[in-house]
Amino acid sequence: MNQEILPIYNALNEFKQKDPISFHVPGHKNGYLIGERCKNIQQFLEKDVTELTGLDDLHSPEGAIKEAMELLTDYYGTVKSYFLVNGSTVGNLAMVLSVCNEGDYVAVQRNCHKSILNALKLAKVHPLFIYPEIDQELGMPGGIEPGSLKNTFSKYKAIKAVIVTYPNYYGKTCDLKAIIELAHSHDIPVLVDEAHGAHFRLGNPFPPSAVELGADMVVHSAHKTLPAMTMGSYLHINSRRISVSKVEEYLGILQSSSPSYPIMLSLDFARYFLATFSREDIEFTMQEIKGFVDGLKRVSPLKVKEQKNGDPLKVSIYVEGVSGFELQKVLEENGVYGELADSYQVLFIFPLLKRGTTYPYTEALLRIQAAFENNIPVSQGKTVESDSSFIRSVRPLAITYKEMEYTPKETIQISNSINRIAAEMVIPYPPGIPLLMPGEEITKKHMQAISRLLEENANFQGNSQQLKKGVIRVFS
Amino acid sequence: MNQEILPIYNALNEFKQKDPISFHVPGHKNGYLIGERCKNIQQFLEKDVTELTGLDDLHSPEGAIKEAMELLTDYYGTVKSYFLVNGSTVGNLAMVLSVCNEGDYVAVQRNCHKSILNALKLAKVHPLFIYPEIDQELGMPGGIEPGSLKNTFSKYKAIKAVIVTYPNYYGKTCDLKAIIELAHSHDIPVLVDEAHGAHFRLGNPFPPSAVELGADMVVHSAHKTLPAMTMGSYLHINSRRISVSKVEEYLGILQSSSPSYPIMLSLDFARYFLATFSREDIEFTMQEIKGFVDGLKRVSPLKVKEQKNGDPLKVSIYVEGVSGFELQKVLEENGVYGELADSYQVLFIFPLLKRGTTYPYTEALLRIQAAFENNIPVSQGKTVESDSSFIRSVRPLAITYKEMEYTPKETIQISNSINRIAAEMVIPYPPGIPLLMPGEEITKKHMQAISRLLEENANFQGNSQQLKKGVIRVFS
Repeated sequence: MNQEILPIYNALNEFKQKDPISFHVPGHKNGYLIGERCKNIQQFLEKDVTELTGLDDLHSPEGAIKEAMELLTDYYGTVKSYFLVNGSTVGNLAMVLSVCNEGDYVAVQRNCHKSILNALKLAKVHPLFIYPEIDQELGMPGGIEPGSLKNTFSKYKAIKAVIVTYPNYYGKTCDLKAIIELAHSHDIPVLVDEAHGAHFRLGNPFPPSAVELGADMVVHSAHKTLPAMTMGSYLHINSRRISVSKVEEYLGILQSSSPSYPIMLSLDFARYFLATFSREDIEFTMQEIKGFVDGLKRVSPLKVKEQKNGDPLKVSIYVEGVSGFELQKVLEENGVYGELADSYQVLFIFPLLKRGTTYPYTEALLRIQAAFENNIPVSQGKTVESDSSFIRSVRPLAITYKEMEYTPKETIQISNSINRIAAEMVIPYPPGIPLLMPGEEITKKHMQAISRLLEENANFQGNSQQLKKGVIRVFS
Repeated sequence: MNQEILPIYNALNEFKQKDPISFHVPGHKNGYLIGERCKNIQQFLEKDVTELTGLDDLHSPEGAIKEAMELLTDYYGTVKSYFLVNGSTVGNLAMVLSVCNEGDYVAVQRNCHKSILNALKLAKVHPLFIYPEIDQELGMPGGIEPGSLKNTFSKYKAIKAVIVTYPNYYGKTCDLKAIIELAHSHDIPVLVDEAHGAHFRLGNPFPPSAVELGADMVVHSAHKTLPAMTMGSYLHINSRRISVSKVEEYLGILQSSSPSYPIMLSLDFARYFLATFSREDIEFTMQEIKGFVDGLKRVSPLKVKEQKNGDPLKVSIYVEGVSGFELQKVLEENGVYGELADSYQVLFIFPLLKRGTTYPYTEALLRIQAAFENNIPVSQGKTVESDSSFIRSVRPLAITYKEMEYTPKETIQISNSINRIAAEMVIPYPPGIPLLMPGEEITKKHMQAISRLLEENANFQGNSQQLKKGVIRVFS
């Protein structure tokens, strides 16, 4: 198919040429009502239309939106690909809900995205959480090891799906090929949250894409590394194991019945951008990144961590003995904004650049150099790392998600929590892998690990303040 | 509170003034990567940011977004009000899921929005569908009558919630006050899909708002009559019967973990727009509508139907003996776009206009006059109206939503369908009230009504083609 076409943009432009007068929603009436205070968004709002004649309907596509999604399907080479307007969140929800029924056993990477955990809960499945591998150097959790999955398969027979994240937030990959082969040898579908890997389709030097490796369903955030608007994502059905009608049913349930045209337009543009991204564009992108990274390496006392076999669009920078949060503050004060900070590092995400476009890498380097001339980041002392390897053994939750809905909760002393059932997550940070999930029984080892982390003043995600008071939520 | 403030717009502008260089998502990098083909949206994309320092987080608001939602709460005078970025769809889902548990009985208006039906299914409740009143003049279903609700309460004791639509798509209201009083006398919460009535807060000449009438939870599409972007909506918790934490849990589950800043910005703007809409602005709006409607009445052969006690922003136009679809076609060929057409009419939605702004009403009238000089809409013959009043008696579904998930379906002849259980909706149009819902037993009366409608070549929503072949999907 001719990937140069932008069907939704064309439909919107044709509509605009009719000089239409609006007696329909949205209420801003093509931007008329926005007025002086937000004037600069008025022109854009002409694209924020509704399902008018000629503009098709995401929930029942027959025209421009259908054509745009066919171009996407063609480019990724899938069974069927979809535009999502409620982010990868809705992709993850639809993926799990369309494959799993209440009471099914499901093998899930323990450090998966919140939306996967929410999906498991909505679907009321029995999750079997698999502990990921850890990159010791920067305390960063990766994907699951094929061996861990093999152990789980040998212990639990009736597993309905395997759910993994690939790559992780930092661009780190795992042996997804072996995981998929193992699951498929048991005829179990593999659902991949590839939110950060939509661009892997470009091939070398990017890691192989989950679609190419044969995952059964794959979610892509088109707004993370491709130039789509935030909340724009793709969902790919990539095998005959998946029911197209069930997926479409859940996408219809979980997404607005008035989808945003600007987001759909940007999803079409992101597909076009990627499909026309040439070998020379990749070389140009890599060359620009190399120039910037080499520059970063010359800034003392910065250190750069590049991914081996990971995503070259992601690079972590750090300063020995200084927390990532402190480093982030110094960078932001100088107008340089990274994607995230953790105890160790700041993560940068670089753009895919076509030849002829520029990115302010030189200016960024000047600002970073200036930052370290004027500021010496303050050390925040040592980071306490948790040893949660004792939770490597996989076991089902002590009570089901359904029972959790009806069971009252109470707050008790952590020291009295042995043999009780957790009603909240406990996530020591780093490495950011949940030590306890809601529904898990608290063992002596859990209690000891939490107590030790608290003594050493460790960081926790979310409920830090409660935990630091020595209390935890449990089911009554 | 000072309703002139735009906290999110201000936070975005302050951020912009830092001249930030992006090494974060979204991938368009403040519009840098959009290039020539979509150049006119580049400036706007500077507002499409992510949860950076100073820009707050919808899912854990502490800054600009919190302040913006407090202004909304203050303006509507609720317990707590929320910005939604996944449309009124997610508001309806969260409303039902946060109040109803699996197996609960729920009284629901039979002609509710699809998203309410989806919510009932996700929550796996037992719906009791209540037949609405009908406006005979234009074959338009309205809301439910308090008497129908009273009958349902006397027959079914353990009802957990009452769910109604107010106003309907055409701006028609019902006696919501009596419904709320009746439900509250049994201490049952009333959940209102007020998607089309966000502006009722303005008071006379608009109908009373569901919030003011004491509904327990209310959903508003801020993009329907207020100037927000499509997918921008509000959810209001309006009584102590509602659990704030449960509502927030479901909003967190069902909305993107990367919410769109342009949509949030527009929601803040819509609140500001409404809160600063003066008595004089209302008079100006009504005067402009009156001028246009008077003009429409002078165009032969057009007829205008204005709502009595309904929303003056909505007006239906029709031509005797001509279908609304045909009328719509003629209008659109002349560059005038209404909200929807049905067998009888075309619906127009008018803007809320502040003094000093203009709307092309005069141009629209000229175009409509020209349309009828050059075109005489073709009659499409008489419209067949269904008599489905025999489904007025309320009864539970024959099988539960949970059983439906596991039960296979088959396609059979409609003539053989008596005593079988429907697996699809049958919605004769007009009046657009489901004759059959999935899970309902097909009686002899259903079968006869469908057969008669087919003989007379009636319209059905959705599955017309299947039904016209004389077949229907049922559970095996």
